[in-house]
Amino acid sequence: MKALWLCVLPCLVPFLASLSQAEEGLEFPSFDGKERVININEKNYKKALKRYDMLCLLYHEPLGFNKELQKQYQMAQLVLELAAQVLEDKDIGFGMVDSQEDAKVAKKLGLEEEASVYIFKNERVIEFDGELSADTLVEFLLDLLEDPVELISNALELRAFDRMEEETRLIGFFKGEDSEYFRAFQEAAEHFQPYIKFFGTFDKGVAKELTLKMNEVDFYEPFMDEPMTIPGKPHLEEDIVEFVKIHRRPTLRKLRAEDMFETWEDDMEGIHIVAFAEEEDPDGFEFLEILKEVARDNTHNPDLSIVWIDPDNFPLLTTYWEKTFRVDLFKPQIGVVNVTDADSVWLHMPDDEDLPSAEELEDWIEDVLSGKVNTEDDDDDIVVPADDDDDDDDDITDFDDDNDDEDEDDGNL
Amino acid sequence: MKALWLCVLPCLVPFLASLSQAEEGLEFPSFDGKERVININEKNYKKALKRYDMLCLLYHEPLGFNKELQKQYQMAQLVLELAAQVLEDKDIGFGMVDSQEDAKVAKKLGLEEEASVYIFKNERVIEFDGELSADTLVEFLLDLLEDPVELISNALELRAFDRMEEETRLIGFFKGEDSEYFRAFQEAAEHFQPYIKFFGTFDKGVAKELTLKMNEVDFYEPFMDEPMTIPGKPHLEEDIVEFVKIHRRPTLRKLRAEDMFETWEDDMEGIHIVAFAEEEDPDGFEFLEILKEVARDNTHNPDLSIVWIDPDNFPLLTTYWEKTFRVDLFKPQIGVVNVTDADSVWLHMPDDEDLPSAEELEDWIEDVLSGKVNTEDDDDDIVVPADDDDDDDDDITDFDDDNDDEDEDDGNL
Repeated sequence: MKALWLCVLPCLVPFLASLSQAEEGLEFPSFDGKERVININEKNYKKALKRYDMLCLLYHEPLGFNKELQKQYQMAQLVLELAAQVLEDKDIGFGMVDSQEDAKVAKKLGLEEEASVYIFKNERVIEFDGELSADTLVEFLLDLLEDPVELISNALELRAFDRMEEETRLIGFFKGEDSEYFRAFQEAAEHFQPYIKFFGTFDKGVAKELTLKMNEVDFYEPFMDEPMTIPGKPHLEEDIVEFVKIHRRPTLRKLRAEDMFETWEDDMEGIHIVAFAEEEDPDGFEFLEILKEVARDNTHNPDLSIVWIDPDNFPLLTTYWEKTFRVDLFKPQIGVVNVTDADSVWLHMPDDEDLPSAEELEDWIEDVLSGKVNTEDDDDDIVVPADDDDDDDDDITDFDDDNDDEDEDDGNL
Repeated sequence: MKALWLCVLPCLVPFLASLSQAEEGLEFPSFDGKERVININEKNYKKALKRYDMLCLLYHEPLGFNKELQKQYQMAQLVLELAAQVLEDKDIGFGMVDSQEDAKVAKKLGLEEEASVYIFKNERVIEFDGELSADTLVEFLLDLLEDPVELISNALELRAFDRMEEETRLIGFFKGEDSEYFRAFQEAAEHFQPYIKFFGTFDKGVAKELTLKMNEVDFYEPFMDEPMTIPGKPHLEEDIVEFVKIHRRPTLRKLRAEDMFETWEDDMEGIHIVAFAEEEDPDGFEFLEILKEVARDNTHNPDLSIVWIDPDNFPLLTTYWEKTFRVDLFKPQIGVVNVTDADSVWLHMPDDEDLPSAEELEDWIEDVLSGKVNTEDDDDDIVVPADDDDDDDDDITDFDDDNDDEDEDDGNL
């Protein structure tokens, strides 16, 4: 996945204002001016790799005389500087690699995608292709410092595992820390840390609850009720890695700051089906439950992959999306987005008290997959909403409105 | 709550680097250089109030010749500029008020706490005393644009309501939009928006599920199973406001970016009981469940208020807290923090597989409330851990270790 260098993707660099309070205990760090980020080159890269437990490198295009680009990279460098300062005691090195000046080093290190950050840890390389803010980067690096496999040892901890339905996650049952199969599982976990979560248990009761046999590993796709058991236990590291690689793209996935660009690049023939829903909002939650039902019913369709975006997680992008996609994000939305030009078409929902049923959503998705609904062909299927306050929605298709208005009833209660 | 102006609290200002991608649809905004933030003074403040639906003012101390302070305020102003740009279509004005130069205006507007942001909306003033980052401020303002009362109209939406256990929230059952009691409820909601969530239902089924009678309002304290019914229905706006004011400080509350400084200022005689736990981590989740149990058992104790911090929500503060409090935040922690000097004392937990029981935690909390465990008296109750890799924890008190080591059993499964 190579990225071109335009000057479009603006990433967040936290700067710091030291406003004041009388109380102590909540002091945000501000950059102390001490430069910790290394300019990586052929002479120093081996030493840097040896020197730190983890080395975190921003791979960038040559800055040349482009003032705008230089300014942007100063900002990116400041993100790294602040992260380096904050994580000073964690033995993490930070550096920048110029794709032209340091082309040889980049090749040796396997850096490919400009504007990505690569983290070197125990002879592994982890690509960070997320929001380049100090917040997101520091959280990501702290996650990488945790054990690759979390242990589940009682019923309460199992509840924590059950609640993580947004996450792609694996869990295996092993004899103990010294089991060779547990070690293979740990090695496999390191390939995907921290994007995919690996859990292990040595507890028979937990294993029984999960219907796991000894050395068995289950793979949970996000939002699915039932896991898949990786066939052919006991597993070698490669078996698990291979299985995860094949199954990692889920039917429904949540956009996350730490790999948002990677997710966006992983489109389906140039498009994404995108759903906006605030989980904290009752309408958003309801819509999301309908969406999960559709995803569960269609999880075996390899052509279907829906990206769910919770606007609450991206406040600075919310109005940008409203403008770009011409939708009102105070209510749930689902549409098709062409990732090359951000052209889009959205399912018409009369209002947030009248959401489509799972069947209606499924019909619409079928129309998307068959090409009947598409971003290039806005003149078909257009409905001009009569009583809608959103006057921008000329790209909206209607859903089949047969059994509406009765959803508000309390029949389910 | 007045705050002094030191130069300690550094708040996050997002700057923007425009790195690039080939795909479109995820472009973070970068400051376009157009200045939108107004310098508020006696001549223009009335006009500004009239001109916008919402006016968002940063109240600040005089900058004088203090270069450091000037720099910090440039950063704060940039947060406002970016927020103003992002929210340009939402009819929100942004301004700065100097506490010395504009003392008269500040008095007229009721601005009191320097470094706070005040939002004027429909003749109400809302104080924002949270993390001054564009992310947090924009999310806060977007929340303020939503309806003050969210409607719950079916079983799925009710599930969304049930899941919000972290939030202080109210729900009332009314005849309909035109009910005078619903309107009073809406007016009351505006006093607390967006900090306290107000929900309403017109649906008999939903009301039945919540055991709500017509015009009845229930108040839910965070993490409590049972709500309190506001006595004396039907209610006037003032009744509800008064009740919320009296009951708003919960036994257990989660630290949130949008009002973190306000929460920190709301200490109990100079101290906070602080619990660190990652909800996404099985150990953290388990500890939190124990903590909730303790909170539920002690919810009638007015002297008890515990602040729960999820380190995942504050990545830039994690290592600062580890240094300041000398604790390892990769595992759950609970301690007492003196808010004037950040001196602290922490409950000793041998390791994260051996968490205290609810009873042990309750005993320790009793010792804190009685003063037996306190930050000034570190020489009492000290246990030097034998097998702990954390060598900084000289401020640690032990918990009663009677029934340890057996917690990992699968008895509960």
